[in-house]
Amino acid sequence: MAGQVLTPQGEDFPRWYQDVVARAELAENGPVRGTMVIRPTGYAIWERIQAELDARIKAAGVENAYFPLFLPQSYLAKEAEHVEGFSPELAVVTHAGGKELEEPVVVRPTSETIIGEYMAKWVNSYRDLPLLLNQWSNVVRWEMRPRVFLRTSEFLWQEGHTAHRTQQEAAAFAERIHREVYEDFMTQVLAIPVIRGRKTAAERFAGAVNTLTLEAMMRDGKALQMGTSHELGQNFARAFNIVYLSDQGKQELAWTTSWGSSTRMIGALIMSHGDDNGLRLPPRLAPVQALVMIVKDGEGVHEAAHRLVDELRHTGIRAKLDDRVDVAFGRRAVDAELKGVPLRLEIGPRELADGKVTLVRRIMGGKDVVALDQAAALSAEALLVDHQALFDEAEVRLDLRTEDVESIDDAIAAAQKGLARIPWAKLGVEGERHLAASSITVRCLVRDDETIPVSDDDPEAYAVVGRAY
Amino acid sequence: MAGQVLTPQGEDFPRWYQDVVARAELAENGPVRGTMVIRPTGYAIWERIQAELDARIKAAGVENAYFPLFLPQSYLAKEAEHVEGFSPELAVVTHAGGKELEEPVVVRPTSETIIGEYMAKWVNSYRDLPLLLNQWSNVVRWEMRPRVFLRTSEFLWQEGHTAHRTQQEAAAFAERIHREVYEDFMTQVLAIPVIRGRKTAAERFAGAVNTLTLEAMMRDGKALQMGTSHELGQNFARAFNIVYLSDQGKQELAWTTSWGSSTRMIGALIMSHGDDNGLRLPPRLAPVQALVMIVKDGEGVHEAAHRLVDELRHTGIRAKLDDRVDVAFGRRAVDAELKGVPLRLEIGPRELADGKVTLVRRIMGGKDVVALDQAAALSAEALLVDHQALFDEAEVRLDLRTEDVESIDDAIAAAQKGLARIPWAKLGVEGERHLAASSITVRCLVRDDETIPVSDDDPEAYAVVGRAY
Repeated sequence: MAGQVLTPQGEDFPRWYQDVVARAELAENGPVRGTMVIRPTGYAIWERIQAELDARIKAAGVENAYFPLFLPQSYLAKEAEHVEGFSPELAVVTHAGGKELEEPVVVRPTSETIIGEYMAKWVNSYRDLPLLLNQWSNVVRWEMRPRVFLRTSEFLWQEGHTAHRTQQEAAAFAERIHREVYEDFMTQVLAIPVIRGRKTAAERFAGAVNTLTLEAMMRDGKALQMGTSHELGQNFARAFNIVYLSDQGKQELAWTTSWGSSTRMIGALIMSHGDDNGLRLPPRLAPVQALVMIVKDGEGVHEAAHRLVDELRHTGIRAKLDDRVDVAFGRRAVDAELKGVPLRLEIGPRELADGKVTLVRRIMGGKDVVALDQAAALSAEALLVDHQALFDEAEVRLDLRTEDVESIDDAIAAAQKGLARIPWAKLGVEGERHLAASSITVRCLVRDDETIPVSDDDPEAYAVVGRAY
Repeated sequence: MAGQVLTPQGEDFPRWYQDVVARAELAENGPVRGTMVIRPTGYAIWERIQAELDARIKAAGVENAYFPLFLPQSYLAKEAEHVEGFSPELAVVTHAGGKELEEPVVVRPTSETIIGEYMAKWVNSYRDLPLLLNQWSNVVRWEMRPRVFLRTSEFLWQEGHTAHRTQQEAAAFAERIHREVYEDFMTQVLAIPVIRGRKTAAERFAGAVNTLTLEAMMRDGKALQMGTSHELGQNFARAFNIVYLSDQGKQELAWTTSWGSSTRMIGALIMSHGDDNGLRLPPRLAPVQALVMIVKDGEGVHEAAHRLVDELRHTGIRAKLDDRVDVAFGRRAVDAELKGVPLRLEIGPRELADGKVTLVRRIMGGKDVVALDQAAALSAEALLVDHQALFDEAEVRLDLRTEDVESIDDAIAAAQKGLARIPWAKLGVEGERHLAASSITVRCLVRDDETIPVSDDDPEAYAVVGRAY
């Protein structure tokens, strides 16, 4: 329907992405290079992401807090790998309050250091552990090649930080977040199938001993990292002196984790589900699940439309009325398609006279004329079915475009159109470096039994490799 | 009960405030001067503030969006008064991505300028108006004399920004927010009575033509500005060229407003309601309204406590279980008092044997032994009554400590223990400057008929003057 509005995906995928972001009014570039303005349509998606993730994070026993935007420069230097990893991306405040600062201040690229400093104050005995914190905030990592939602100099995210008594407990918690918060949210709400795996040493978070990741495949076959959960070992506990008195009366170093997911997921949502007509929002995420559209005025039409909105809401559906009859109907319909509203219920004098409404399904396409008094129940059913359909479509793509290979050359060939799975023993650190020359990275290490490799050199591990956002 | 824990208010009010913030685990100073760490207990209060305000903001038809943290330095300079007002408080990023920036970047102290820039892009015709936006974000204003929650170099807030066709429409919207969002929230949720008035020219927001304010009185008689709503006239529309094609086919400048409220409100909450035993959280705000405490273990105690929590929740009460019987009961009770939980329901083997539970009321004090099967209903009633009691107590204080005076000397005397109301015609701009020498400011201009003065020289206006946070 929106034929001319967007560059077709098949013609130029990056251009299609830019078009959708602009035409669906999701975001724009900010005035300072690499920053973005998130418009109401985009921000409503972020609010839904926040609500769903926040509920899962709290269900895992984690409490929200807020730590400052500004870090003393000296904090970062306390963990050697961490400072090395983040230094090239830092924004530095040198002047404030009309004066030059004695010690320059860094805008947080992530908060392991400052949270480590405070954990050290708050943790005294084993009774204070585990300490489970999360914050919703903005962070800054200067970007050389920015792209809205995917790589921005400032982005919004949540970052969880926890401290535990033992390595086992920390590892189990990092995996719990990976599975119960991230994987559950991504599959059950975003309708995006994900590969759960372990990062190689080269791809690990700066300062972590183990990084768990969730990788998704976009419609162009490229991978996108959706969220990561890190075991930090005792690296930050040592740097910031997070020490507790054990139940044996001994001073012990704590074990910490951190984990994050960001506005990048909006980019993933667009590129995983969008089509040539625009966004397709997964039903459980969609801020508006059903849009009741008045086609044109007529006796009783407004009342019937309002009643329908009420019925949809009673059925538990996020419904909204579009009664802007002074705007051409076709234009409104194209706008709803672009913005990916899962269901449209179109009602006008003709439909009402027959006691009918036209139910238009954005996700799998098609429209049905249904009885007005059945519309709410049918909508609820359609939303359930369409979540699954959207997930299945993405899963089929992931399966079809992931190729099992036995050589590095075959991996490079397969990565031109999707992902390749190669035995890690055949690739190794050498092969990983070789792939980098073709802009191909190891997205993660996985195992056939769907458990996650517990070490960097698990002989049964496979490397999933590909091009990535 | 918590006798020794806090410095008494009567002895040293500022010290008492610091003690409460620390002992109730609300917040701490951050490592960079003037910043703060908001701990889970404090942040849960902020989340409740956000939820209540956000619902009211959305009910006014406003949509959330997000604009960048970084502003080009040139933006601020576009509105002369605005740049003059904010320049002394700015934090400036001069280096990023390992290089010196060509144009330094300012960390937002507020977002009128950047939002004005984008409104100009989005507004074309009268059909695009009103444009009603809000954002939840952090802002930075360098503080010379920081104090947790009250004056911090970084704070969290919401800032609303709207554009309208006419001056009347903009003025009406600024007043609507002032009344339906801020006053309603502050009185109905925070249980804090507020004086609604107009700022004098000297106290106005930098760049505004009219600033509406809500002022509250703290327990030490000092005033605290709770939130402000500004008419910006056409100042920012002119600076950023927010122009629309009217329905008459003419190019017109829009009229804009902005309005904000911040984490300062947590400071107000503490100082308006707190007593020598700690916080007293207003029932509708409290993250935990009722804490079911197991006094000690015994047969059936845990089951009964869980059942009680369930019943409370079914009654619509935010209830939590404290079953940490390995921690001394007295210590847990003091902690709940410090943190201001409105109701405690204490249950142990003795209470259970009698089918009873002890209901302890934090706000007005007192404890009652009540039948277990009546506890949820009585709790709901207590929360209603205690909201009103807390509000009434604050209102009596505000009335008793606001003195009507006829001379500047009397105003200075009255302001030592509270607020003074003096006819604006007798004070004037000269008198306002005179008061400043005694650290007394005009909090706002009001009228006897409770309407808000529509000009700076309304002959029937009274000035409410006092010392302020």
